Amino acid sequence: MSRWQPDALGRLAQAALELYGEHGYDQTTVAEIAARAGLTERTFFRYFADKREVLFYGSESLRTLIVDTLRAVPASAAPLEAVVSTLEVAAASLEEHTGLARARKRHAVVSAHAELRERELIKLASLAAVISEVLRDRGVKEPAASLVAETGIAVFKIAFERWVEDKKQRKFTSHIRAALDALRAATAT
Amino acid sequence: MSRWQPDALGRLAQAALELYGEHGYDQTTVAEIAARAGLTERTFFRYFADKREVLFYGSESLRTLIVDTLRAVPASAAPLEAVVSTLEVAAASLEEHTGLARARKRHAVVSAHAELRERELIKLASLAAVISEVLRDRGVKEPAASLVAETGIAVFKIAFERWVEDKKQRKFTSHIRAALDALRAATAT
Repeated sequence: MSRWQPDALGRLAQAALELYGEHGYDQTTVAEIAARAGLTERTFFRYFADKREVLFYGSESLRTLIVDTLRAVPASAAPLEAVVSTLEVAAASLEEHTGLARARKRHAVVSAHAELRERELIKLASLAAVISEVLRDRGVKEPAASLVAETGIAVFKIAFERWVEDKKQRKFTSHIRAALDALRAATAT
Repeated sequence: MSRWQPDALGRLAQAALELYGEHGYDQTTVAEIAARAGLTERTFFRYFADKREVLFYGSESLRTLIVDTLRAVPASAAPLEAVVSTLEVAAASLEEHTGLARARKRHAVVSAHAELRERELIKLASLAAVISEVLRDRGVKEPAASLVAETGIAVFKIAFERWVEDKKQRKFTSHIRAALDALRAATAT
């Protein structure tokens, strides 16, 4: 049982994604998700506050992975490089554990609902906040720490969108490198 | 009557900020805001959906100013330079029309409430979306258009925070240039 896929959580998340795709997010009830997963509503609510939260299953693990990885990057690495290589680790983990097919399904549901897009923005902003905190612990001054954190999250967000929309199915990590290159070209004087 | 300060709107926004500062955001009612502005609750609801919206008074004008300014930047300007010089125009306008004292008061209220911080994030994300749209109209390809837009908004957001917290009261536009310089230093290879 990996930390990404505890049995009941994984089944609930999978069932929710299937039902959101088949019947629509608005039409799906918690009772239906629990039934599809072969579990009770009570079990659902042991793990998730509501049907929205199921879509953000894994956010906490991702945050922990990012913090631990960034802390372990050698001090000699430039801040942006440290952040981007950390986000590549996160991207590879997401690609391995969630996979492109599920990431696409999830992205379709989130994109179609303002309240879910907002929740996604909040999660991303909180990732940027924790990254800038770790950078400051590493001795990076402000405003560089916040700028690098926000820029890294922008790279991650845009690379994620391109990954799930990529017909050629290139890797998430290669979209991150491409976005970083585009950013560097755009900021070069 | 400038477009930034129509009489009733400006009085309501001012009254709300005063009351949020004096009694707290949670404790203030729409009735109290209307009374302080010398207006009726009915007038309040003609302009704002709720007491949260008063804090985002001016967002629409800011958005229009940004779109119009960016569209008017000469095509020869590099995308990031076009966006940052546009955001400097927006910053100068905010500094002139809202002013540092009110921006500080507003920032204190927004920072202290999760729901208001979330709304701020959503407004900023929608500014990034409209900026990337104008950049694409100007012929900038993806992912550069989205990256430059998100990066520009990160610069604006961080410069705003530094402006309202700056004890030396340097100009908002000078914080934007400083943030851009820090970004360029961080992204240089």
